[in-house]
Amino acid sequence: MTKLAKYQIIQEEIKKQIQDGAYLVGEKIPAESQLMTTFSVSRHTVRQAISSLVNEGVLEKIQGSGTFVVEQRKIQAAMGKKSKTIGVITTYLSDYIFPSIIRGIEEELRENGYSLLLASTQNDTEKERESIEMMLRQQVDGLIIEPTRSSFFNPNLSYYLQLKLNQIPFVYLHTAYPEMDAPVVAMDDEAGTELATKHLLDLGHREIAIVSKVDDIQGRNRLKGYFKAFEEAGDFVSSDHVLTYETRTTDGLRSEIMQLLTAENPPTAFVAYNDQVALMIEEAANERGLLIPDDLSLVSHDASGMRLNHNGKAPTSIVHPQEQMGKDAARVLMNAIEQTGTKSDSIIYEPRLIIQETTKKFGQ
Amino acid sequence: MTKLAKYQIIQEEIKKQIQDGAYLVGEKIPAESQLMTTFSVSRHTVRQAISSLVNEGVLEKIQGSGTFVVEQRKIQAAMGKKSKTIGVITTYLSDYIFPSIIRGIEEELRENGYSLLLASTQNDTEKERESIEMMLRQQVDGLIIEPTRSSFFNPNLSYYLQLKLNQIPFVYLHTAYPEMDAPVVAMDDEAGTELATKHLLDLGHREIAIVSKVDDIQGRNRLKGYFKAFEEAGDFVSSDHVLTYETRTTDGLRSEIMQLLTAENPPTAFVAYNDQVALMIEEAANERGLLIPDDLSLVSHDASGMRLNHNGKAPTSIVHPQEQMGKDAARVLMNAIEQTGTKSDSIIYEPRLIIQETTKKFGQ
Repeated sequence: MTKLAKYQIIQEEIKKQIQDGAYLVGEKIPAESQLMTTFSVSRHTVRQAISSLVNEGVLEKIQGSGTFVVEQRKIQAAMGKKSKTIGVITTYLSDYIFPSIIRGIEEELRENGYSLLLASTQNDTEKERESIEMMLRQQVDGLIIEPTRSSFFNPNLSYYLQLKLNQIPFVYLHTAYPEMDAPVVAMDDEAGTELATKHLLDLGHREIAIVSKVDDIQGRNRLKGYFKAFEEAGDFVSSDHVLTYETRTTDGLRSEIMQLLTAENPPTAFVAYNDQVALMIEEAANERGLLIPDDLSLVSHDASGMRLNHNGKAPTSIVHPQEQMGKDAARVLMNAIEQTGTKSDSIIYEPRLIIQETTKKFGQ
Repeated sequence: MTKLAKYQIIQEEIKKQIQDGAYLVGEKIPAESQLMTTFSVSRHTVRQAISSLVNEGVLEKIQGSGTFVVEQRKIQAAMGKKSKTIGVITTYLSDYIFPSIIRGIEEELRENGYSLLLASTQNDTEKERESIEMMLRQQVDGLIIEPTRSSFFNPNLSYYLQLKLNQIPFVYLHTAYPEMDAPVVAMDDEAGTELATKHLLDLGHREIAIVSKVDDIQGRNRLKGYFKAFEEAGDFVSSDHVLTYETRTTDGLRSEIMQLLTAENPPTAFVAYNDQVALMIEEAANERGLLIPDDLSLVSHDASGMRLNHNGKAPTSIVHPQEQMGKDAARVLMNAIEQTGTKSDSIIYEPRLIIQETTKKFGQ
C-alpha cells in the first residue's frame, strides 16, 4: 500500500491522541457516533480504525461497556516499535515431529533476538481462530502458521486478510491456504510419494496400497504422487487399494486396513501417510500374522525415528527436514519482517528416500 | 507409453483369438489359472488384461458364472476401430446453464461425426462412478467430465487413471481434479470474482458480502478473488460477510442471508456464486423490505438470462461462455482423440463483467 486508507489515518490520529494524553490509560474512548462527527467519516471507517487498534492491542472492547485504552506497556509496543515476538500456530505441538520443527524455529529466532509465542489448533478451525486472536492481542511482529484442515475452506480467512492489511507478515508451514497467498516452507509432497511408490514398483510390487489423509493438502498431494507413479509405470490401481481418512476418522482406519489385508486381492506393499499410520499398518499386519518386510513391504513418510512395534525395524521412508524446516521458516519470516527478502521466499524441499528395513523385493 | 505393458500384450492376444474365432460370442473364456499357464504370466497380469477387456466391452463378467465374450457388434467396435462416441458427464443436465453447454458440445461433435452419451452425477461421487462404468462399457473414444464435489478427495480417481492407461482421453469442464492431470476448459474464477468485487468497491460499497459454494474448486477460487479485491483496496472483510454452502447445505442458506441482512453491520452489496444464489439473495432482501439495487447492490456469475423475481431486473454479472465453452471442450477432446493437439490444450477464459440493473453507487 503506497498511501494510507482513511481508516488508517483515523487510527494513527487516535494513537497520537492517546500518546498526547487526550485519552488516558483505562479510559473509555468516545462512542462511534461521536468519533464519526469528530473525524467527519462514516461509521464503517470508525469501526475499521477501532477494530484495527483493538488488534494492535491499543484498545480493548469490553462487551456491554465500551472501548477502553489499554495499559501503557502495550501501547508503547504498538507505537511503531516492534515487539520482537513471533507467533507460531501449528496443528500439534508436543507429539511426533512437531517438537523438532518448533525447536528449529525457536533456535533461529532466539539467535536473532526474537521470542516465541506458541499455540496449537489440534487441527480444529475454532481453536485456530482463538489462537490468531490471542496472537493479535499480543502484538506479534509476524506469524508462522501450519494450516488447519487445509483441504477444506477455512472460515478464518478474514483474519489472514487482516494480517496482510496490518502488514503483519506470515509464513505457511507444510502447505498454504489456497485462497490466501503467502510464502510457504514445505516438502514437495507429490514428488515424495511418487518416489516412495516407485521404490515399491521397482522392487516388483504391483498390488501397492496407500493410506493417506485427505483433510490436508499434503495428503492430497501425496495421493497425486501415488497415481503418477502408477501412470509412469503404465500400471493400474485398484480402487480398494486407496484408503483415505480425516483427522476425525482415524478410529475406523485400522479395521479398514485389516479388511484390506484379507481381501481377495490383498496388497503386498503399503505407502503410509506418515510413521503414525505406518505403525497402524504394522499393527494390522501383525494381527493377521503377516511379517514386515517378508510378507508386506512398507514405505513411510517423515523418518521420525519411530520403529515398528513388533519387530523393532526402522521404516524405509521419505525424509522430513524437521529442525531445518523450522529454521528456514523462521528465516523466511524474519526476512519478511525486516523486509530484506524478495517477494516470494517460499522453500520447497526435494524429497529424499532412505531405504531401511521395511521394504523387500516382491516374492523373495 | 512407447511400448506395451505385459497385460496389454495379453489383452491384444485374447482379442486376436476372439477375432480368429478361437473363442466364440457368448462363450466363456478359460479360468484365470489356465490363462496364467497359457501365457506364462502372473495372476495379476491376467486380471489386468481381463479387466481391461471388460472395460473395452470385449468381455463381460457375470457374477458367479465366469467371464464371457460379448456380442459381435461391440467387439468390432473394440477392435481398434473408434466408436465415434463421446461421453459427457456433468453435475447437472437439464437445469440452468447446462443445456447450453451441452448443446455446444453436441453441435461441435455432430459436425465432426461423433455421437454423444450423456450422464449426470447430481454432484454425487457414487453416481459419478456408475456413470464412468457405463461409459466404459459403451466404449467411448473420450470423455468430457465436469468434476464432482471437486474440493474433496474423489474416491473414483482410479477410474481416471484407468482411462489414461487405456488411452481414452478426457477433458475437464469448469475445473480439474487436483490429483489427476488432464486438459481443462474453464473460466478464470478467481479473476472473475475479483472483477465483480472491484466493481462494487468502485461504486463505493465497503460492506460487501459474498455467498459462495465450497464443495467445488470454482467456489473456492471465487472466494480467493473476493479476498484479493479487498487486499488490493487495502480494506478489511468482516468474517460475518463470508457465507459458504455445499450442495447438501443449501436449505439453511436463505435464512443465513436473512439474518445477515438484519445484523448490526449489514452488507450494502452482495457477490453471488451464481444466478441461482442471486435469486435467493433477492428473496431474502424482498422479505426484509429491501430493494435491489436501491438498498442492496448485487453482482452475480454466469449471466444465465435469469431475472430477479420481484422486480424483473437483469443481474449485473460475470459472463459465462456456455455454448462456446461446450464447443471448445469438444474441440479439445477431439484433438486429443485424433492426436492433433499439443500436450496441454487447456482453455481458460478471461472474465468479462456486464453491468446491468442490480448495481448502484453506494448511498445514492
